[in-house]
Amino acid sequence: MEANKVNKIIDADVHPWINGDIKGLLPYLSKSMQKVFDGRLTLPDHPLRPPLEKSTSIRLDATPPGGGAGGSDPIYMREVLLNRYNIEHAILTSVQAGKIVVYPNPIEATALARAFNDYFLNEWLTLDSRYKLAMCIAVHDPLKAAEEIRRIGHERGVVAVFMPLFNILMGNSYYYPIYEAAEELGLPILIHPTGTEGGFSTSVSMAGGVPSSYIERHTDFPQIAYGNLVSMVFEGVFVRFPKLKVLAAEFGYSWVPSVMWRMDQNWRNFRKEVPWLEKEPSKYLLDHVRFTSQPVEEPEKGKYLMQIFEMMHAEKTLIFSTDYPHWDNDFPDNTFTTLPEPVKQRIFYDNAAELFNLNKLEITR
Amino acid sequence: MEANKVNKIIDADVHPWINGDIKGLLPYLSKSMQKVFDGRLTLPDHPLRPPLEKSTSIRLDATPPGGGAGGSDPIYMREVLLNRYNIEHAILTSVQAGKIVVYPNPIEATALARAFNDYFLNEWLTLDSRYKLAMCIAVHDPLKAAEEIRRIGHERGVVAVFMPLFNILMGNSYYYPIYEAAEELGLPILIHPTGTEGGFSTSVSMAGGVPSSYIERHTDFPQIAYGNLVSMVFEGVFVRFPKLKVLAAEFGYSWVPSVMWRMDQNWRNFRKEVPWLEKEPSKYLLDHVRFTSQPVEEPEKGKYLMQIFEMMHAEKTLIFSTDYPHWDNDFPDNTFTTLPEPVKQRIFYDNAAELFNLNKLEITR
Repeated sequence: MEANKVNKIIDADVHPWINGDIKGLLPYLSKSMQKVFDGRLTLPDHPLRPPLEKSTSIRLDATPPGGGAGGSDPIYMREVLLNRYNIEHAILTSVQAGKIVVYPNPIEATALARAFNDYFLNEWLTLDSRYKLAMCIAVHDPLKAAEEIRRIGHERGVVAVFMPLFNILMGNSYYYPIYEAAEELGLPILIHPTGTEGGFSTSVSMAGGVPSSYIERHTDFPQIAYGNLVSMVFEGVFVRFPKLKVLAAEFGYSWVPSVMWRMDQNWRNFRKEVPWLEKEPSKYLLDHVRFTSQPVEEPEKGKYLMQIFEMMHAEKTLIFSTDYPHWDNDFPDNTFTTLPEPVKQRIFYDNAAELFNLNKLEITR
Repeated sequence: MEANKVNKIIDADVHPWINGDIKGLLPYLSKSMQKVFDGRLTLPDHPLRPPLEKSTSIRLDATPPGGGAGGSDPIYMREVLLNRYNIEHAILTSVQAGKIVVYPNPIEATALARAFNDYFLNEWLTLDSRYKLAMCIAVHDPLKAAEEIRRIGHERGVVAVFMPLFNILMGNSYYYPIYEAAEELGLPILIHPTGTEGGFSTSVSMAGGVPSSYIERHTDFPQIAYGNLVSMVFEGVFVRFPKLKVLAAEFGYSWVPSVMWRMDQNWRNFRKEVPWLEKEPSKYLLDHVRFTSQPVEEPEKGKYLMQIFEMMHAEKTLIFSTDYPHWDNDFPDNTFTTLPEPVKQRIFYDNAAELFNLNKLEITR
């Protein structure tokens, strides 16, 4: 396969890891919270695990030479990901933080989110300015979550708000304080499957029941983004928060045209039910929502991918991601190699730079 | 628009109605069940109603001249649907029967299903042999449901089993007795949104939470078919029941390519989790599952619909339906007018004739 020629790359979905379950967070918790979490600082795995060696979703060659889990060493990741693939910005999203939703107590969950954020700010972002953070929040207490966004959202390198989900659709006003703070700080909301779907009583369910295998669960992931984005559009979140952006990371994208068309078709018939919408529903999606590329989809025929790209306006909506160090990650040199150069540059850089305000960031901060 | 030239038409989704809520079922209930349902023979509407005149989903011009609700008079429907559009077979699915799932008691639900079936056999199928029945079952007691299939599944004109759903995905062995009976009788399983999604504690939920408007709920419908078909494929239902067929009626179809690709991609990685599968997951879908056409989807550009048709193998998987007498029904003379003739004939007739064994039926019964 021909290697890719892309000058500038932003990787919108990179997963750092904290060793010892999340015991690395201890120094970042208050003394009283250290007591609260004594013996409890262990995040459960989803009961359905990938049927891979050691049931891990981390690629085995990501293990740092000095030991620790794959993705836990920022220096090693800098070498094997940033330097090797010439990545200008790598957006860090902690899948461990995604599991905050399993702690039902709002005070504990809020404290954990704060500790996660301080950990990555201190242990990763100070090390290399190419690392950028999707800070996490605990949706358990939206007002406290908004406080957390305002506490560190202005920090250099904080570029998004990772929002693990409850079983309340994202169009609900429950989340307004979070959206208000995110919009104020110019940070897009990032959603990501891990920890936010099925299996935990406090996290979101799939349509129709509980999937019974990992392959089924993974195939069902797009439903989560589907339902939540439809909810946001119709409930008028983007009317109320006109500068708010959303990144649906790792939910796939070949389903996006179908949802846009169905929203618009229903709007032509039922628009009086959502009189606050000022334009076609699909236009809100095109203006406010972006999707990450990994895993690159594999249609029956190659031409179908190009057709889907046209249907979903990929030159505007799609954003490259590696998902490193997960087992199925994509590297930039063999991803979308046959795309026309202008589209490639938008997917590999421009769309992300706009979403995360990365060019502005370098100048103003 | 150019009128359609289709010689033979099968309409796979027609909705008859029983007046007086379902009080017309009384003569078809046993004396003891008549007492059980005394004052209770009223099916609830979903709390979210279409924002249309009178909040009804029935087109107002479907009201029979002699009175009663739209769709309640088989003679009037014969005139305005079968005769006018030259429909050779009309598959009747009762959306009222879809609400059987709201009765949590298995004995009551089973009795209702039986009464529904006897009502339509007696009041509709005897009137005109073009009427065919998707008999209903109560999934509350799968063994009793299988009994009901064996009781009337051989009757002339019974061509499918309409299965309103619980919040148990269709791949679960809970449903095996039903599949066994349906396969034995050569009847496809039919699923349909009404009564089977959201809003009722015993029926299935959407991914991520509860939609809060009809427009949102209706946009989310495809998730129900998505999750259940993925479940059936991966759980190996079509390996265990190699002759079983499924018709996903009124769930849309432009999402189908996305699901096929995602299943296959995951299968290449995780196939050891589903070792019973003997071929690519998408092949099971192509061989066993069909989708109805109404409402015809309206992509941003007309050419996208043709591209989706190619991706989903519509010449094999798509089946024409009017959804008469619902407010948004499609009529054959202005549906898919620009399709090539051979594909049109498959969508308007051949695919349905094969699924419902309609040609064989005329000869052998």
